[in-house]
Amino acid sequence: MIVQKYGGTSVGSISRIKAVARRVVRTVEQGNRVVVVVSAMAGETDKLIDLSRQITDMPDEREMDLLLSSGERVSSALTAMAIQSLGYRSMSFTGRQVGIITDSSHTKAMIERVEAERLRRVLREGIIPVVAGFQGISASSDVTTLGRGGSDTTAVAIAVALKADLCEIYTDVDGVYTADPRIVKEARKQERISYDEMLEMASLGAKVLHSRAVEFAKKYDAPIVVRSSFNNKPGTLVTREDREMEKIVVSGVTYDKNQARITIMSVPDRPGIAARLFKAIADANIVVDMIVQNVSTKTKKTDISFTVPIADAKKALNITREVSKELGARGVNMNTNIAKVSIVGVGMRSHFGVASKMFETLAKKGINIMMISTSEIKLSCVIDVKDTEKAVRALHRAFIV
Amino acid sequence: MIVQKYGGTSVGSISRIKAVARRVVRTVEQGNRVVVVVSAMAGETDKLIDLSRQITDMPDEREMDLLLSSGERVSSALTAMAIQSLGYRSMSFTGRQVGIITDSSHTKAMIERVEAERLRRVLREGIIPVVAGFQGISASSDVTTLGRGGSDTTAVAIAVALKADLCEIYTDVDGVYTADPRIVKEARKQERISYDEMLEMASLGAKVLHSRAVEFAKKYDAPIVVRSSFNNKPGTLVTREDREMEKIVVSGVTYDKNQARITIMSVPDRPGIAARLFKAIADANIVVDMIVQNVSTKTKKTDISFTVPIADAKKALNITREVSKELGARGVNMNTNIAKVSIVGVGMRSHFGVASKMFETLAKKGINIMMISTSEIKLSCVIDVKDTEKAVRALHRAFIV
Repeated sequence: MIVQKYGGTSVGSISRIKAVARRVVRTVEQGNRVVVVVSAMAGETDKLIDLSRQITDMPDEREMDLLLSSGERVSSALTAMAIQSLGYRSMSFTGRQVGIITDSSHTKAMIERVEAERLRRVLREGIIPVVAGFQGISASSDVTTLGRGGSDTTAVAIAVALKADLCEIYTDVDGVYTADPRIVKEARKQERISYDEMLEMASLGAKVLHSRAVEFAKKYDAPIVVRSSFNNKPGTLVTREDREMEKIVVSGVTYDKNQARITIMSVPDRPGIAARLFKAIADANIVVDMIVQNVSTKTKKTDISFTVPIADAKKALNITREVSKELGARGVNMNTNIAKVSIVGVGMRSHFGVASKMFETLAKKGINIMMISTSEIKLSCVIDVKDTEKAVRALHRAFIV
Repeated sequence: MIVQKYGGTSVGSISRIKAVARRVVRTVEQGNRVVVVVSAMAGETDKLIDLSRQITDMPDEREMDLLLSSGERVSSALTAMAIQSLGYRSMSFTGRQVGIITDSSHTKAMIERVEAERLRRVLREGIIPVVAGFQGISASSDVTTLGRGGSDTTAVAIAVALKADLCEIYTDVDGVYTADPRIVKEARKQERISYDEMLEMASLGAKVLHSRAVEFAKKYDAPIVVRSSFNNKPGTLVTREDREMEKIVVSGVTYDKNQARITIMSVPDRPGIAARLFKAIADANIVVDMIVQNVSTKTKKTDISFTVPIADAKKALNITREVSKELGARGVNMNTNIAKVSIVGVGMRSHFGVASKMFETLAKKGINIMMISTSEIKLSCVIDVKDTEKAVRALHRAFIV
């Protein structure tokens, strides 16, 4: 039993949908039972969002969900037709029809359970189900959507519910690389990667697989393969960590240019200051990534720097300015010309000297480090955006080849 | 309580949707409770049909329904947002959510019942519901669509279920005219018309209101107003017949150029011949409109002529040719250059001489009548298509002004 999820570019045109149908049929002919999950055709969701923006800047989230869920319904019906036209039995299903029960957080609903009876029944009957991804239904019988990467989550949730052997995520890249191949020529596709590494990679900007789907898969130990629907290459297996993986210190180098750094200067260093600032920012639904607080000066003043997504930068800056006045800080500045470069690998846990080697590598290239943040399996440095490519190449050469 | 249904052109763009929202709000401000029913934005359904045709000529009807139902979901969500942005509470609902329960005849489902509890509840809460027209749900929990004119039927069914005072059908014409105003300058909008007259008008080509919706309204005696969403003119009330109406002999002159006449010549005149022919045509899902059989000649041979929609003409011709050989007829011919002109009016029942006056009027203009068919409240003549406009003008002058 295989769950195959096809993203927006994979079903982006009628000829692409026909290619998907052929791949599904080929997988069935190889002796597998297949459940297909599809995203909306590329561009359709943005088109619907644009229509709503022409009406209001603040569309109601419940209405937004009914609006956006229509895109996957179209692609699932068309994909089922394409499979049928190859002589196979197929039926399309909405999120509701395959029992994707969510909470009622419209536009970012969480799956509570999957009532997969109907799906099991049609599979027993030899029918190939095509499920509209990204959507579910709440207790009040309203349509909900699962937010960014929602179709990935649908696929993994169904794979878990059906105890599928594999969940294949088809996209427009061949798999997860050791670095962005557009920047690093020697970058190579990884055969296997752990859930945790994938989570760090996903949140660091390698947009092949959404972190919520990976978290879901990790929780239930459901193996995922990320691969391309445009060729027959094997892809990258995302699976639970094993001994082999630990031998590799760094499995990937990533970067993220969509961050801005905000610094609040010479703020009095007393308890509750950071809490005051970051509560105000969280209340505005802005996610703060890195936070660095300098050691206090003799005058009992400190600088606090943090990074936010560039889309939220202006809003975060205004909030910080207000808080700054209130706290009697010297001022606030923002730098949007930054990038975050990171190295990721489960092997880091048991290897010493990784951090110093990273700093050394950047120093040798004359790259200044503005901020540092670490986790058990990753190391991130904020640098000037103009140094991004140089840094990624140097780190890849130092740690991977 | 008013049910307002807006057709595809009425919600054909964001600015049109905003205009609909303003009209809904105005109706609410006048002290009414309003339920809105919307069609898909003009062109969207055709776009979806075109996508499916690129995959297969014979799309599965269940999949087709899931595909097509998405258009009304988009327009209902957008319309609800537009009403909200005017400061009113509004929610969009799918056919399923307002309990439109249908049989399982996909692409042409019949409404079995309306479970309107949720609709009643939101109305009590002061929310303006916007319902996606054209769709329902079958016993097996699959999405169904109601076929051509389905959103009209949705609106009338909801009006009946809620015991609404009025069902307003908004379209791009001002109402039901005594004749096509593009042909007859003196044509005037009718203030009131009976269900039966509207049924005859609808099936004769005045495409303002679908016949299934009129039948539904007639059955439950639900008054309908047909009016334009592009202006504030009062429209035409479609209601039960009364004394006043009977005084008007002819309430409208209509025409239909989308018919073809097929004649099977010199067929043996014995029982079962007509049955054999028309069963074969019905089996191909072709609807025959008029049938004329000439009196038998001395040789016990007869000619049978009938009309079919021009879209089915070629298929009907092939079937007739096959049957013709089988029956030993002399041959088959087809004429696609025909039109049907009709006069409609409940007053005909109690007035004599209407038929002869119609034939006389056409004769005076030198128009040859090829076929005649009658019902209690209408008279139709098939004529050469080139005479259509002349015939409609002459009949309008003779019977109406």
